[in-house]
Amino acid sequence: MTDDNKPPAQLSEDKDASLLDMDAEEFRHYGHEVVDWIADYLTNTERYPVLSQARPGQIKEALPESAPRKGESMEDILADLDRVIVPGVTHWNHPAFFAYIANSSSAPSILGEMFSAAFNVNAMLWRTSPSATELEEVTLRWLRQMLGLPESFSGVIYDTASISTLCAIAAARQAVSGLRVREDGLAGTPETDDKPARRKKEIFLRLYASAHTHSSIEKAAITLGLGQSGVRLIPADAEFRMDSSALAKAIEEDRARGYTPFCVVATVGTTSTGSIDPVPQIADLCEREGLWLHVDAAYGGSAAVVPEMKWVLEGCERADSVVVNPHKWLFVSVDLSTLFCRRMDVLIEAFSLVPEYLRTGDPEEVKNFMDYGPQLGRRIRAIKFWFVLRYFGVEGIAARIRNHLEMAREFAAWIDRSTDFERLAPVTFAIICFRAIPAALSEDRLDSLNERIMEEVNRRGKIFISHTKLDGKFTLRLVVGNIRTTRDHLCLAWDELNGALARLLDGSRPEAMCQ
Amino acid sequence: MTDDNKPPAQLSEDKDASLLDMDAEEFRHYGHEVVDWIADYLTNTERYPVLSQARPGQIKEALPESAPRKGESMEDILADLDRVIVPGVTHWNHPAFFAYIANSSSAPSILGEMFSAAFNVNAMLWRTSPSATELEEVTLRWLRQMLGLPESFSGVIYDTASISTLCAIAAARQAVSGLRVREDGLAGTPETDDKPARRKKEIFLRLYASAHTHSSIEKAAITLGLGQSGVRLIPADAEFRMDSSALAKAIEEDRARGYTPFCVVATVGTTSTGSIDPVPQIADLCEREGLWLHVDAAYGGSAAVVPEMKWVLEGCERADSVVVNPHKWLFVSVDLSTLFCRRMDVLIEAFSLVPEYLRTGDPEEVKNFMDYGPQLGRRIRAIKFWFVLRYFGVEGIAARIRNHLEMAREFAAWIDRSTDFERLAPVTFAIICFRAIPAALSEDRLDSLNERIMEEVNRRGKIFISHTKLDGKFTLRLVVGNIRTTRDHLCLAWDELNGALARLLDGSRPEAMCQ
Repeated sequence: MTDDNKPPAQLSEDKDASLLDMDAEEFRHYGHEVVDWIADYLTNTERYPVLSQARPGQIKEALPESAPRKGESMEDILADLDRVIVPGVTHWNHPAFFAYIANSSSAPSILGEMFSAAFNVNAMLWRTSPSATELEEVTLRWLRQMLGLPESFSGVIYDTASISTLCAIAAARQAVSGLRVREDGLAGTPETDDKPARRKKEIFLRLYASAHTHSSIEKAAITLGLGQSGVRLIPADAEFRMDSSALAKAIEEDRARGYTPFCVVATVGTTSTGSIDPVPQIADLCEREGLWLHVDAAYGGSAAVVPEMKWVLEGCERADSVVVNPHKWLFVSVDLSTLFCRRMDVLIEAFSLVPEYLRTGDPEEVKNFMDYGPQLGRRIRAIKFWFVLRYFGVEGIAARIRNHLEMAREFAAWIDRSTDFERLAPVTFAIICFRAIPAALSEDRLDSLNERIMEEVNRRGKIFISHTKLDGKFTLRLVVGNIRTTRDHLCLAWDELNGALARLLDGSRPEAMCQ
Repeated sequence: MTDDNKPPAQLSEDKDASLLDMDAEEFRHYGHEVVDWIADYLTNTERYPVLSQARPGQIKEALPESAPRKGESMEDILADLDRVIVPGVTHWNHPAFFAYIANSSSAPSILGEMFSAAFNVNAMLWRTSPSATELEEVTLRWLRQMLGLPESFSGVIYDTASISTLCAIAAARQAVSGLRVREDGLAGTPETDDKPARRKKEIFLRLYASAHTHSSIEKAAITLGLGQSGVRLIPADAEFRMDSSALAKAIEEDRARGYTPFCVVATVGTTSTGSIDPVPQIADLCEREGLWLHVDAAYGGSAAVVPEMKWVLEGCERADSVVVNPHKWLFVSVDLSTLFCRRMDVLIEAFSLVPEYLRTGDPEEVKNFMDYGPQLGRRIRAIKFWFVLRYFGVEGIAARIRNHLEMAREFAAWIDRSTDFERLAPVTFAIICFRAIPAALSEDRLDSLNERIMEEVNRRGKIFISHTKLDGKFTLRLVVGNIRTTRDHLCLAWDELNGALARLLDGSRPEAMCQ
């Protein structure tokens, strides 16, 4: 075929003699091989079971106890990748991955990641890579416009929504008046300190989120030293949205008990069902009470790129901070989370710390993103995002998300028309919550039936779904989010579910019902 | 040349019609192009100035205000990468990058990153990718052995040392008896709570680190709600190592003042000079006082792979936790930090939180790494590390680090032999701290002279160095850490420094002095 197929001249003896990196021609050879491998993988992902069928320990046992003493050939490493690693991969990039929050590493994003790895910059300071910093600013501005957030928001890219939310809550904590948290921490300092007594009035912070909020909110509170008792979960209504009058009541009650409410986390697109908290009402309350409003739109925010879905971010223009994850539903590889904030100065106050060895004479106007969070080390994440935004364009991205929304609605319609299944939540985005309810079975047997359906379809490996609990019921979740998913994959899912149900009930297999 | 050079049949019109990803053949075409680009880049990095010479705003201004409405061709995107992005890159992967902590994205690591992007797994649960989890366990075990740490340590991979250290300190905080920090936070709950009063005795936590500790330790303390007053910096000796008797005194003094000492952070390889705190003495003290000992060996730990450098981790086998960053000196691309911990159960207690939608029926024996830190989202970082460890082998890695140590010592010897420069710190690893001290200038003019030397060599772009302050003196730092650095690059650095000094003093230019 091509010249590339000649094995490279470079041998492993040479690599030890030079004490340098792999020879560039050897990189070129294997780089082409890896690209071909990935092109084939993206074409043929469906030959693999979506959920890895590996047994615990299988991968560990297939690999040596210790690292090799001498270097090995890239041939051998790639052979082990096929032999050992691939069977243990759960294929998130498979078009029938419908579990958790399905996502995509699109091909332009993979190309972008290759440049990130090659440049290997640390985007801590502007000068340590102006392109990393400014491309971060550019892609954040583009996304802000696409979401319809006003210019009063500026942004920062983190690895995950967990960190975005942690930083937002840290900023909220920093904004609490009378609490010098950066200097004195949450517990203050002892009165016997040699400096003038700096012990503050005791302040017991509390933040509010719905019972359907993501676990990362409580985890952030624990990490930040607020503890689980620093979080109060507010009941949701029948459609799994935060009850804003219950929120108002909780805040009032807590003030009376000696707590200091400081932050509300509203969700646009909850993990279980994709429900949207009533952000405008919550924003009213936060303004009245002087609380920081953080919106977790990590999943749902991306849908606002679709013109007819702009409404999902209604009220978010009044939030103090909003997180949206391009690595969820904007076809960007993990990891890349964006935080937009109207009070970035407070966030910087919470985190900025510049030791002598990181001081620069650079002008004030440049951004040093190390000042925006706990991590000094920062990969260049913006390149892959820039590749994706440019390659697909705003309309191309919107069309793909719209397509997912439509497929999700069609799947929901199949459930609604079926007598064997019922839907357990509204379909706002592309998450469908449902369960099997065959007439033959009583309520108390449905949880175990549905768990067995999930295990059965996941074991078969053609699709992968996950679960949640809604109103105490074991609930199947199917999420449309991979860029390679087509209607055929939804039909396959429907077929698999009906097949599993039939086999579990009586061994017969119904016709596929989506055609 | 090859078939690849034909433009792909796929056009942008098609991509909007399909609503899917880039066609696999188009990915193959551009993937090969990007690999060739990277191979050329790695060969010719030296044609670029190391420190980007971009002016603030240059990259932003060259890019549109808004994302494109329609998708663009990959040709155009790659052309802009060359035109706009590359001039704004500070080339961390350049062999004459000697600033901060010089590092490398080796070619095997780049190949590994390509697979991470293609698989795009989220390694939160074992089942969401058994290979990601088990390869993480395997590479951690290999590294633990390479470092000489005992089996009592188990490990976890995070993005950065900032997060590794934050998690270690969170575990230390969790281990404080009488403080139910996970449940009640650092401030406790009000006495008027409806549940039985849970307000703890007031506890003012304090952690200790040397005056030369990395800024991430103080930042972690701020994030965790301890505040800056929760950190006490201990003076260092003349060689920039923590004074362990001053530490003992500080702990005693603080106990008397009402603080609760809970953690000591010792450093193996400080950022400014690479000094090593006296870990064995500090470990004695921590055992006596019941304090958590965390060792920040993010930079220096890697040197323990070299047999004659094993001693640098002396005493660390008695630490509670140790961080080592493969993305610093083990030729792995940013980001990949490893934390080894002897009390992983406590760390998990500090962070584990499993909502219903992430529950699995998987056996107890599997690790769900989401339980080990604040982040739910976790890229598969272990593949690139596995590629690097296998491709170079333990001896190959040790030989390369040894080579860096030798080059650093030789550079230090050039300084020691020169009458125009003086060394300001011992060279333990591959960091050389020095300054120009021409006879013509008095002490009060040396800071500004050395700052100008740094600016001059960095502006010329052949090398990139950074600075620190030692005993109040502006100090130049040169760090050998890139896998492509050779003795010739050190000669170039020496030549550049002497040239800059001569020009700044009298316009003459001395002979290069390293030959």
